[in-house]
Amino acid sequence: MSLTNATPLEVAQAARVGSRRLAVLSTDERNAALTAIHEALASGKEEVLAANKQDLEDANKAAAGGTLSQSLVKRLDLGKPGKYEDMLQGILDVRDLQDPINKTTARTLLDDNLLLSRVTCPIGVLLIIFEARPEVIANISALAIKSGNAAILKGGKESSHSFAAIASIISRALSTTSVPSDCLQLVQTRDVIADLLKLDQYIDLCIPRGGNELVRYVKDNASIPVLGHADGICTAYLCGDYPADKATKIIVDAKVSYPAGCNALEQLLVHETALNSTLPIVAEALLSKGVSLRCDPASFSALKSKLDAHSAAILQEASEEDYDTEFLDLILAIKTISSLDQAIEHVNAHSSHHTDAILTLDAPTAQTFLSAIDSSSVYWNTSTRMADGQRYGFGTEVGISTNKIHSRGPVGLEGLTIYKWIIIGDAQVSAEYGAGGKKWKHEKLAAGDEEGWARNEEEKEVLRKFRAERGT
Amino acid sequence: MSLTNATPLEVAQAARVGSRRLAVLSTDERNAALTAIHEALASGKEEVLAANKQDLEDANKAAAGGTLSQSLVKRLDLGKPGKYEDMLQGILDVRDLQDPINKTTARTLLDDNLLLSRVTCPIGVLLIIFEARPEVIANISALAIKSGNAAILKGGKESSHSFAAIASIISRALSTTSVPSDCLQLVQTRDVIADLLKLDQYIDLCIPRGGNELVRYVKDNASIPVLGHADGICTAYLCGDYPADKATKIIVDAKVSYPAGCNALEQLLVHETALNSTLPIVAEALLSKGVSLRCDPASFSALKSKLDAHSAAILQEASEEDYDTEFLDLILAIKTISSLDQAIEHVNAHSSHHTDAILTLDAPTAQTFLSAIDSSSVYWNTSTRMADGQRYGFGTEVGISTNKIHSRGPVGLEGLTIYKWIIIGDAQVSAEYGAGGKKWKHEKLAAGDEEGWARNEEEKEVLRKFRAERGT
Repeated sequence: MSLTNATPLEVAQAARVGSRRLAVLSTDERNAALTAIHEALASGKEEVLAANKQDLEDANKAAAGGTLSQSLVKRLDLGKPGKYEDMLQGILDVRDLQDPINKTTARTLLDDNLLLSRVTCPIGVLLIIFEARPEVIANISALAIKSGNAAILKGGKESSHSFAAIASIISRALSTTSVPSDCLQLVQTRDVIADLLKLDQYIDLCIPRGGNELVRYVKDNASIPVLGHADGICTAYLCGDYPADKATKIIVDAKVSYPAGCNALEQLLVHETALNSTLPIVAEALLSKGVSLRCDPASFSALKSKLDAHSAAILQEASEEDYDTEFLDLILAIKTISSLDQAIEHVNAHSSHHTDAILTLDAPTAQTFLSAIDSSSVYWNTSTRMADGQRYGFGTEVGISTNKIHSRGPVGLEGLTIYKWIIIGDAQVSAEYGAGGKKWKHEKLAAGDEEGWARNEEEKEVLRKFRAERGT
Repeated sequence: MSLTNATPLEVAQAARVGSRRLAVLSTDERNAALTAIHEALASGKEEVLAANKQDLEDANKAAAGGTLSQSLVKRLDLGKPGKYEDMLQGILDVRDLQDPINKTTARTLLDDNLLLSRVTCPIGVLLIIFEARPEVIANISALAIKSGNAAILKGGKESSHSFAAIASIISRALSTTSVPSDCLQLVQTRDVIADLLKLDQYIDLCIPRGGNELVRYVKDNASIPVLGHADGICTAYLCGDYPADKATKIIVDAKVSYPAGCNALEQLLVHETALNSTLPIVAEALLSKGVSLRCDPASFSALKSKLDAHSAAILQEASEEDYDTEFLDLILAIKTISSLDQAIEHVNAHSSHHTDAILTLDAPTAQTFLSAIDSSSVYWNTSTRMADGQRYGFGTEVGISTNKIHSRGPVGLEGLTIYKWIIIGDAQVSAEYGAGGKKWKHEKLAAGDEEGWARNEEEKEVLRKFRAERGT
């Protein structure tokens, strides 16, 4: 990894050149680079923690001055028991995932001896902007190398010493491997971002992780595609038939377990038949956890009459804008709903298309909701907090996307790949077909990685040998 | 289809509302709409041809005045024998393709009774800008409805009468079906495009079909994602071992069969060992078809000495910019190459990442090329003109993409879909796992459409019934 002060153009060009070499490395070569990074970071622990200590000192000063929150300071600390080891283990976990590239995902025999195949490959050069948690840089670097992508990285400034130390160690580690060092570059000043976002001839995709403001800035200023999400306004629709104990368990988890998360619940839609039965039980549990409830008139009056005086006194009335707000805090907007159609309409209009849930025992109701909601994740009887790459079994994630193209929801290794179409022929040409008299066969074949693009046993053997020599 | 003079905002909002209803229609309902459009256009043939005649008259006047080419005028004529019938058949062909949405493409058992599935769904609202060929509007409309997407359409102005007539007929046909008419809207003036490109809260994707200038304008002005390609600079690399007869057949097809196509060959790279053997035979064939050859010094001098005096006299010297030019004409740039690495480097730097080919008998050479070339289609021993949705077996295509995300190469129905993640649980919540003590199972299950999101036989039966009632 280069720790670079080069111009944005130089950074992007170097990454592009590096990406070409990285893209053709074998699985073994990419995995060996991850092993080397793991070993180097393990033996460089003291060096990294010393740098991290400097970040912590600066952060504590800022916290004392009131410009940084204590919870952020805590997240900067790489010295907490087990945290460094978790970071190291994460690199090995990514290494041990299945290789996402060079997979043959479709094969069509266009005509005798003329085979079309679709093969996964890296996207190319990624620009990843991420928050200040120092361990994130190791995670993202591992994902990039595993997926064969070069990456230009910019991390939150509060961890700049830690990032620089980790980057130096990764750089030294890569110099002993087949992965060119320019494939990972850490840019250290924020002012280069604007220029990088315009370099669409060298950079293929930007993934901004972080707050609404950052994501909007990137979307407004990029000529390269952007994968990510700005808001996380997640909703749950509670039907009258759903048991109060399960509803409470789900809604408390969704709201309370990590209110600052993008997958935290921000709005509860309540069917009117649940207003006097389930809702008061759920509300009592939420209030006891310190959640402020902002209610529409119907839910407000129902709760007023059902809750004890102390609880009733702290209820708030919701404003219209509460239904378009990502609170990221212990606040929940509640709205009464009189039909499934109204719930669907509200969610499609007010959720941020991140994650929405329905709580019901009725299968047709749930199916209609699952089918009609236009969001990246839609759940039936579970918490919106499930939206996470690790929970989805991706090993880890590079971000969560609410895009309608490419990758949607938690984005793991697969989301960092694209494909190319390969045709192998024997001098068949386009003009022979159609008006030329020959007919297409268009026979779909099974897509196996063993076969790859091979048309017959002989070519399979050639392919096997080619791969074995490269260590794929 | 609405033939609309509404404001861009009204157009986009109406399309968004329509898209929500279209997205939940069953396969049968969407197919029935295509049958209705087919029947209406079949019985409205005279009406359409009358409008088309008006376009042709205007076009002939423009051609006489020198502002339109005769070849474009020909392409406007829907009355040519068989053309209208081909257009009608195209609608039925799309109808009869497999439904691309509601497919379950991955299933993971996260824990007992907690199932994650990935289900394909429409993208939402498409903005498609297309050329003046009048039959294209029927084709694109069919693709949009089949894939469950609303579409805002803007066609080339030379066919505006034909488009308006076809749109009116489609509109009347849709009014008898479950597909809301606002799902297809034809905008009739170019000045609304700039505004539409900014409405990313209502429009999910723009597909500009047409010249470089249009695509660059769209890419520079859109806040919505753009799928497509600006240039089609396709290359072929001819190795010394490839037989001259096959090389000639492929290169002549690639250059001559449709020089205005984006998949036409623009550059021929020749390994130095082929300069005096294969190249003269290929060059003679190209010259006899009227192709101008622009040669680098080595190929120029080789051909000078090998070709007859007449042929040698019309050879041209290439300039550097010829290797970055999409000629769209009977012109071919030729460059001498001394190694596979040099060929790969040249293609990755100068091709437009659309389609590139290698001609060789040597498998390892071909494999290295296929693996290293960063283009949407890469071929071994066939013509770049193969890059086409119909030839790939997609039935038809909505465009060809050189994007590095979402869809790459010819884009058929599958490229008009995205997916959502569905989880079905029984009140399991996030905080129970990891630090909460429970372990994820992450068991990958076979992804069958029959199973869909069902966790057991009982739910499979519910799902079957639900689908049967909806006619999916």
